[in-house]
Amino acid sequence: MPKAQTVGIVGLGLIGGSLALRLVDRDRTVIAWNHTARPYESARAAGVRCVDTLADLAAAAPDVIVLCNPLKAMPDVLGELAGSLVPETTLTDVGSVKGMVRDQVKAAGLDAQYVGAHPMAGNERSGWAAADPTLYDGALWAVTVDDSTDYHRFLAVAELITAGVGNRIIVLDDTVHDQAAALISHMPHVVATALANQLTDDPNRNVAAALAAGCWRDMTRVALTDPDRTRAMVEEDAANVEALLRSMAAKLTAVADLLRDEASEARSDSDPGASVPHTPAAMLDFFADADPFRAYKAAERAGGVTPEQRTIELTDDGWRGELLESARRGEHVIRLDGPRRFTAEVRSAL
Amino acid sequence: MPKAQTVGIVGLGLIGGSLALRLVDRDRTVIAWNHTARPYESARAAGVRCVDTLADLAAAAPDVIVLCNPLKAMPDVLGELAGSLVPETTLTDVGSVKGMVRDQVKAAGLDAQYVGAHPMAGNERSGWAAADPTLYDGALWAVTVDDSTDYHRFLAVAELITAGVGNRIIVLDDTVHDQAAALISHMPHVVATALANQLTDDPNRNVAAALAAGCWRDMTRVALTDPDRTRAMVEEDAANVEALLRSMAAKLTAVADLLRDEASEARSDSDPGASVPHTPAAMLDFFADADPFRAYKAAERAGGVTPEQRTIELTDDGWRGELLESARRGEHVIRLDGPRRFTAEVRSAL
Repeated sequence: MPKAQTVGIVGLGLIGGSLALRLVDRDRTVIAWNHTARPYESARAAGVRCVDTLADLAAAAPDVIVLCNPLKAMPDVLGELAGSLVPETTLTDVGSVKGMVRDQVKAAGLDAQYVGAHPMAGNERSGWAAADPTLYDGALWAVTVDDSTDYHRFLAVAELITAGVGNRIIVLDDTVHDQAAALISHMPHVVATALANQLTDDPNRNVAAALAAGCWRDMTRVALTDPDRTRAMVEEDAANVEALLRSMAAKLTAVADLLRDEASEARSDSDPGASVPHTPAAMLDFFADADPFRAYKAAERAGGVTPEQRTIELTDDGWRGELLESARRGEHVIRLDGPRRFTAEVRSAL
Repeated sequence: MPKAQTVGIVGLGLIGGSLALRLVDRDRTVIAWNHTARPYESARAAGVRCVDTLADLAAAAPDVIVLCNPLKAMPDVLGELAGSLVPETTLTDVGSVKGMVRDQVKAAGLDAQYVGAHPMAGNERSGWAAADPTLYDGALWAVTVDDSTDYHRFLAVAELITAGVGNRIIVLDDTVHDQAAALISHMPHVVATALANQLTDDPNRNVAAALAAGCWRDMTRVALTDPDRTRAMVEEDAANVEALLRSMAAKLTAVADLLRDEASEARSDSDPGASVPHTPAAMLDFFADADPFRAYKAAERAGGVTPEQRTIELTDDGWRGELLESARRGEHVIRLDGPRRFTAEVRSAL
């Protein structure tokens, strides 16, 4: 890939603005459009070319356009691009749900040019004023493909992320991405909010807040972020979050039932000193179930995880399956060595 | 209170060892017993007087004995002290549940000499090797009283914590303490474990772990601590944790039901572009419910909470109720100014 890519960015908020600054820092040509021109003076001073309309952005024919607009603006943005995007431009995005975005891209008739993407980067701030190229330091991107994804479109996005942004990749299908994101982010945001609600609803909330220490602070931190953004994120991945919330509710109810049974057994016990009841196997199992996660984190903390590298050679027909399998093994693509050859880091598996 | 107190400590683990070092640093005489003599050489070098038996500790007649042993050893420790404790010594403890300890103290016939306590201090380490006097920097202690608590016993413990350890106090009854501790610590530990189990049970766990960021790391951190200690803590506060787990399960199920209803409404909607459904009021309410907590934390972060001070004057008959009421208002006792007069800091309320 001899020539550095030209990149179009839609939306100069935290994610898009940080991406624009990062790419300019790394000597890429960046053209941006934002729904208001407010950040343009500052963005131009930083080296970003800013245009007045989405049609202007499309007409500049960048190698890749990255949609960094809010998901709720996606249908309108795609509708405007549909009339002006040239075939040479590949379209990608940074949305935190992938199935819904692909549906919207298909509805706009742009799916032949599309590859999905989701960078694991962000913080609790928002807007151009918060944009910072270091937001992407060491970030991993999920890149999502389906049966119709064109290999050369995928290569363009992979090159943007690895050579352009300097980040790593795992390749997923939309379903696995959205389930995994629900598990490690969307559902836990609801849980954190429910914990915070439990406190605000409690008549002894001031006493409880006074006793709160690190456990409480850490578990409710994400409940402090913009609740409207959290709600939208949860609704956009509704089916996966719903299933996980029901699974969590079942797990918590099972522990509640075990505690009730232990207490009733202790009350019927003839030994008056037995105020701490006998622990049933199911309770021990509940606490042991997370042992592989504890071992995985302990290895990570010990710094014992120095990733090895391996070469991935892709076949013409099997490339999607080969990359999806690599992701399941816990590998991250870090470099494109040739049109069919990647270097991956082998991380520890859970 | 002219004469510095002599303090006996049972158990030189993380909490007891750190307390012993802290009190020695602050020129208190500290006498300790531990179930094994292993830490004695190091403790003696640090200025702690170590004794061979609990009877020896009782015979030294310290002003206060602080039980820092594991809760499961409590019945045995209390049994041994029951035969040797002199009336001049006041008994307290540092257990994370207070109702159960008071029951055990009553069973040993020592309740006339007892005042409960629970310092909000600790970390994920354990044992004398981890003991560190700075563990108590800025710590708040819950002091628990009931209708039979002797005022001068309470004063002895309050003096130990404020003048001795240099910490702050809120006065609670056992029930409020154990409910509040279940809310901000014991129940959330179960929730964190359930989240970690959700990951380890998932076929896409390696993909999900790769996508995990700050939200997941913070919400599962306490699931990494010793699961056996967590399980014991939860079982010791079983009734409160059970009720809160059921309340959490109901909250999560309610959100799951709302997500299901939104999706089914969107499917039956005639507008094909309406892929993000209409949000019902109940969903908005769920996310708004935590707003007072967000405001409280925002004020805390802004550093706007410079505690004012006020004087609390206690009456002979009403002192328990007056101190309990002070705690509910969010006040922390920081100093004893006289036998019936305290200085409290007024913190922001939730």
